[in-house]
Amino acid sequence: MFNQDMAEKAAESLRRVRERKPLVHNITNYVVMNYTANALLACGASPVMAHAAEEVEEMVSLAGALVLNIGTLSPSWVQAMLKAGKRANAVHVPVILDPVGAGATRLRTDSARRLIEELAIHVIRGNASEILSLGGEKSGSRTRGVDSVHTVDQVKEVAVELAKELRTTLAITGAVDLITDGERTCRVMNGHEMMSHVTGTGCTATVIIGAFLAVNPDPLEAATQGLSYFGLAGEKAAAKALGPGSFQVVLLDALYEMKEEELRAGAKIQV
Amino acid sequence: MFNQDMAEKAAESLRRVRERKPLVHNITNYVVMNYTANALLACGASPVMAHAAEEVEEMVSLAGALVLNIGTLSPSWVQAMLKAGKRANAVHVPVILDPVGAGATRLRTDSARRLIEELAIHVIRGNASEILSLGGEKSGSRTRGVDSVHTVDQVKEVAVELAKELRTTLAITGAVDLITDGERTCRVMNGHEMMSHVTGTGCTATVIIGAFLAVNPDPLEAATQGLSYFGLAGEKAAAKALGPGSFQVVLLDALYEMKEEELRAGAKIQV
Amino acid sequence: MFNQDMAEKAAESLRRVRERKPLVHNITNYVVMNYTANALLACGASPVMAHAAEEVEEMVSLAGALVLNIGTLSPSWVQAMLKAGKRANAVHVPVILDPVGAGATRLRTDSARRLIEELAIHVIRGNASEILSLGGEKSGSRTRGVDSVHTVDQVKEVAVELAKELRTTLAITGAVDLITDGERTCRVMNGHEMMSHVTGTGCTATVIIGAFLAVNPDPLEAATQGLSYFGLAGEKAAAKALGPGSFQVVLLDALYEMKEEELRAGAKIQV
Repeated sequence: MFNQDMAEKAAESLRRVRERKPLVHNITNYVVMNYTANALLACGASPVMAHAAEEVEEMVSLAGALVLNIGTLSPSWVQAMLKAGKRANAVHVPVILDPVGAGATRLRTDSARRLIEELAIHVIRGNASEILSLGGEKSGSRTRGVDSVHTVDQVKEVAVELAKELRTTLAITGAVDLITDGERTCRVMNGHEMMSHVTGTGCTATVIIGAFLAVNPDPLEAATQGLSYFGLAGEKAAAKALGPGSFQVVLLDALYEMKEEELRAGAKIQV
Repeated sequence: MFNQDMAEKAAESLRRVRERKPLVHNITNYVVMNYTANALLACGASPVMAHAAEEVEEMVSLAGALVLNIGTLSPSWVQAMLKAGKRANAVHVPVILDPVGAGATRLRTDSARRLIEELAIHVIRGNASEILSLGGEKSGSRTRGVDSVHTVDQVKEVAVELAKELRTTLAITGAVDLITDGERTCRVMNGHEMMSHVTGTGCTATVIIGAFLAVNPDPLEAATQGLSYFGLAGEKAAAKALGPGSFQVVLLDALYEMKEEELRAGAKIQV
Repeated sequence: MFNQDMAEKAAESLRRVRERKPLVHNITNYVVMNYTANALLACGASPVMAHAAEEVEEMVSLAGALVLNIGTLSPSWVQAMLKAGKRANAVHVPVILDPVGAGATRLRTDSARRLIEELAIHVIRGNASEILSLGGEKSGSRTRGVDSVHTVDQVKEVAVELAKELRTTLAITGAVDLITDGERTCRVMNGHEMMSHVTGTGCTATVIIGAFLAVNPDPLEAATQGLSYFGLAGEKAAAKALGPGSFQVVLLDALYEMKEEELRAGAKIQV
């Protein structure tokens, strides 16, 4: 039922993250900075947060991946994201975008679209509403709202078209995650409902994809593997947690403790 | 000894928060963003943090309540608070203010007063020193300092006058919480001393009042109910915690797990 | 093997922090604001975060110590740090600097050096790479990189010279911590490897030194004592934690619970 080859590759990527400890440069929102930094450390990567226009180009040149997250954006931060992204493109550092709240306000939708237009972005991770809001007028895929009301099955066809249109890999997370680059499509069945009761789990999924992108140049694979690893950690954490507070804590423990064999055995990936 | 009618209503408001999942828009300080977002999720509401002048009007129009918190303020954030607050007033979204550190520096005192002057604010939540610093010269209620040294009994009369003067509901939190709109006064005896050893418990009380305001249009009731629910969760968490670190974690669990019957039975409200 | 006199003094300083509850004013990075505020509360101090140029001078005048941390710096924040630092110097409030990432980008290195040049700084706490990057061209102590690759034994001689050159106390943290004011040198053997898997433990060490500086005017002693206390709490926390998530939580519990006798018995300080 699940793809064993992808499970093997996911375990191998996790091994490489832990071995190479890639530096992941984040220009992200205030809400999740601490948690996503800890999640990156827990999975073996090395986080750095830097947003000043004066240093982002230098910082991203040292990095294995660049994460752009518009969760608490302001115009000057978007400028820094563009600057960092252009340098990342120039020095072949992969870029991942989390368009938090795209569709909810014009600033967010426009900023996300501008980043996509001006940068080569390897993976965009969001919920269905956020991702669909990135489509142009003609794609007819406009939706609005802060929370997603779509299942991946409802959006699959639109997502495949949108990935082609935007020439990127889309990772749409929800009860089931859908990952598509327009040609290939994967589904990840790992995860737990408790993840929706903690702020920033989506943002955390994004940075973990960033860590995997730093060691696996195939965006579709990196996104699928990262989401499977994160979702499996969520399953393990939910078995120990008493509520969302303790869940947030043991989720970091689960990311840290996860053995590569466990990921190989527990990854629920469909290709 | 405690008012059973208010306890019933508190439980009913909690039920509505969980049913309606109101969006609570926060323009707040960096220190507590993650924790208050998680507290809102734990009680059943939906948090969003957005501070850019370019989007706050659009965002607040989608919200059930607006929380303004000056904990790490700067002039541009105060501008955004004014912009969001005016739109909130225009579209009848209730506004709650947390004047963190008012009385400690002129910027904080002046910013809090300006927000109160230019906006219709439904509830102001702070400790006694912060609240008393909001009074004008003539009210004689000036105090200074970052930490509160007053008990609610010492400040009750001044608070009632100040609520009338400011035409708002004041929620003064401490060992016992005092809530007054100038006409009616309530006391909440729920809570635990451990809450003072964790940063941002005051700010968290504020956002929970925000969630209750989104489902109960009576500011005095919403503030009283929210503080009783939060205080009771604190009592339950303190019974499980080993120190302030674990307390912070299990407090979120307690907010999430609290049954409506538990609140009905455990609310310690005096009218 | 360990200095009992310094252990006694460390316990005495901890007692004073808890008795006096000094206000520690932080201008710090977004990533660690919540955690370092909680760490200060857990050890008995009183934290405040304030970065607006309009209020930092007033705020620092109320404080027992000023912590400057460049972890997510931008030019306007550096201006606020200079303003706060100058006032702190004028009113004899001790200043501690955490040059996060100095050596990794020019903005960070230059900002750290500018703060050192324009302010009297009592303690600088960083890893070996960060500290060594602060040396001028002639000191030959230039290194680059985000993570430290040096042991304290490798850097001891350079550190002693650099402390003289900069006329400050350097606290270089690692598996063993080295503290030197150019004349005297201490080593702290407390700590646990798990501390490197949580973001902001270095920043947390810095604020705890800040709390100790507020009650002990000798920078070498305050830094040594603070690091010993923090390291011992890390040892105790590691014995209870299941991974980095739970470690971060129980570390706060350990700071809070630490008895003065425990520090007296467990401090591993060499002079």
